Amino acid sequence: MRIAQVSPLFESVPPKLYGGTERIVSYLTEELVKQGHEVTLFASGDSETKAKLIAPCNKALRLDSESMDPLAHHFTLMEMVQREVDNFDIIHFHIDYLHFPLSRRMLIPHVSTLHGRLDMPDLIPLYKEYKEIPVVSISDFQRKPLSEANWIETVYHGLPSNLYKGSYGEGKYLAFLGRFSPEKRPERAIQLAIDAGIPIKLAAKVDTKDHEYFETVIKPMLNHPLVEYVGEVSEKEKQEFLENAIALVFLIDWPEPFGLVMIESIACGTPVIAWRNGSVPEVIEDGVSGRIVESMEEALCSIEDVKKLDRAKVRACFDKRFSAERMAIDYLEVYDQLIKTKSMSNINFVYKNV
Amino acid sequence: MRIAQVSPLFESVPPKLYGGTERIVSYLTEELVKQGHEVTLFASGDSETKAKLIAPCNKALRLDSESMDPLAHHFTLMEMVQREVDNFDIIHFHIDYLHFPLSRRMLIPHVSTLHGRLDMPDLIPLYKEYKEIPVVSISDFQRKPLSEANWIETVYHGLPSNLYKGSYGEGKYLAFLGRFSPEKRPERAIQLAIDAGIPIKLAAKVDTKDHEYFETVIKPMLNHPLVEYVGEVSEKEKQEFLENAIALVFLIDWPEPFGLVMIESIACGTPVIAWRNGSVPEVIEDGVSGRIVESMEEALCSIEDVKKLDRAKVRACFDKRFSAERMAIDYLEVYDQLIKTKSMSNINFVYKNV
Repeated sequence: MRIAQVSPLFESVPPKLYGGTERIVSYLTEELVKQGHEVTLFASGDSETKAKLIAPCNKALRLDSESMDPLAHHFTLMEMVQREVDNFDIIHFHIDYLHFPLSRRMLIPHVSTLHGRLDMPDLIPLYKEYKEIPVVSISDFQRKPLSEANWIETVYHGLPSNLYKGSYGEGKYLAFLGRFSPEKRPERAIQLAIDAGIPIKLAAKVDTKDHEYFETVIKPMLNHPLVEYVGEVSEKEKQEFLENAIALVFLIDWPEPFGLVMIESIACGTPVIAWRNGSVPEVIEDGVSGRIVESMEEALCSIEDVKKLDRAKVRACFDKRFSAERMAIDYLEVYDQLIKTKSMSNINFVYKNV
Repeated sequence: MRIAQVSPLFESVPPKLYGGTERIVSYLTEELVKQGHEVTLFASGDSETKAKLIAPCNKALRLDSESMDPLAHHFTLMEMVQREVDNFDIIHFHIDYLHFPLSRRMLIPHVSTLHGRLDMPDLIPLYKEYKEIPVVSISDFQRKPLSEANWIETVYHGLPSNLYKGSYGEGKYLAFLGRFSPEKRPERAIQLAIDAGIPIKLAAKVDTKDHEYFETVIKPMLNHPLVEYVGEVSEKEKQEFLENAIALVFLIDWPEPFGLVMIESIACGTPVIAWRNGSVPEVIEDGVSGRIVESMEEALCSIEDVKKLDRAKVRACFDKRFSAERMAIDYLEVYDQLIKTKSMSNINFVYKNV
């Protein structure tokens, strides 16, 4: 199949540092190439891929100090895609709704994965307007605020199977991995460790917007003897950080549309203690790959539960449901379905006009 | 002529508080209606106009605390315009480049006024891509960083002739009007007043992003006995504030694309002491409606010069070049020219295809 993947330009594909969307675009692209498809990747020029790369800008925009208006490059991106449409059987967009005015008028099949949270009232009139545009959700939960959209499938994210390896030793500490931001609730994670009398290690970055929250809420908690802040960890260090943990602590307080870190953890065989919120019940199998909790008391009890879980079975949950291979197969089914629908509607169009 | 005006949705038309673009869209729209044209205004639902109003959202987005993604509404705006194209002879866009993917594919004439500064490197590939789209600059200076664009005219902003009245009494103080932001250089204005031993009144707002600059640089200067900070002034209070000033002090340090406050001042008959920067030499007639300076020494000398200027002649500069009537006439010429070009290219198209 001739497939175009259209990535945002904020980070390279894969990203040098953070960037959830661009990471997934990379995993999907490389897996589709591996499965023998002819893939064209539209992404920033510093991306690395086995697909054919078409780049509307040389550098990822978030790291380009000269860039003041990143939106502008996404407009040139869209026109570059438009010029190439005849070379594709399907176009897969990952750039939110930016391409809707163009893709609505395209004659070839296209699909858009929505990567972010969708509970903004501004989006309701938008998706009412573009109600025919086929969109894929990254969890069933993500769809809830937007019944107006033309949802055709939920495709969970996946990671390459060899990115992390299952490791089945005994955990030594609780792990927090992510950003120090109020909605991730690192203070819940720290409190849990202190209450349980178990060490916690926190691998996290502080965004500028969360600086005050970090200084006032988190920093004072880091002095406790059970608490260790290890700074940011690289992709490589993540394996060691996660595999030696009793559990990943994910006591979030926001409508998480997916939560990549949960599947990173189970890929290492490390169970997750997760607050019931957003996509959590879809990603974590309660009692198999972790525990889903709704209070600090439940979280405290769950520590003994997760210690008893079979870490090989935790990894098996990853292999079955969250590999990049499975993700690619799911998307190929979506592509097939859209190509068939489009060709049927083209046949109907010809019949009607004869 | 059947004319569509497409405004941004950040402020109502006219704006309740600030909003340069939406103010100009309002003045132009009402003047075109007054001149007998059939005008449709696309703007937020709380706009007030004698034209036909089509509103993609009920409230101006900047004042709508529920709005988290204002861009989304501009996409529904564009599709609403697209659905109405057959009802217009020309569409005039004021929404930056957001509509380019759609307007490039429109069969009817359209033009876009660019209201902001254009010296961002991101814009160069964008305007290379969309090089056929006809655009209007608000000063010749504004065009400089973007030779790639299809500039068809410069149309200076205009104000309704009766919005301010020429008032020819003797000025009592120097006036600063605008925002306390580093690029507006209020500290130059204050220093000038202190050096000259003349009182200065400052009518200005402080944006959140400029808070630190205000606290550290400006606030300490406000204690001087010659300096009076009068807060923000309403449209009504502006007349009195400006007409009683010796001069408006406009010692900016940024590439000003137009500078509405300069023409507000001369509409009151009050000359402007302006730093040579951006559009300044196009707006101010040196020695007639004010003085253009390039140093603090020149600014100091210029105070005696502006006191001697004939304030009726200052107002005459406004009447001749910066009325809304003149602005509308200029735009009507642009519309005519584009309609003719489009119909010629349509005739050529028909000839070629017969």
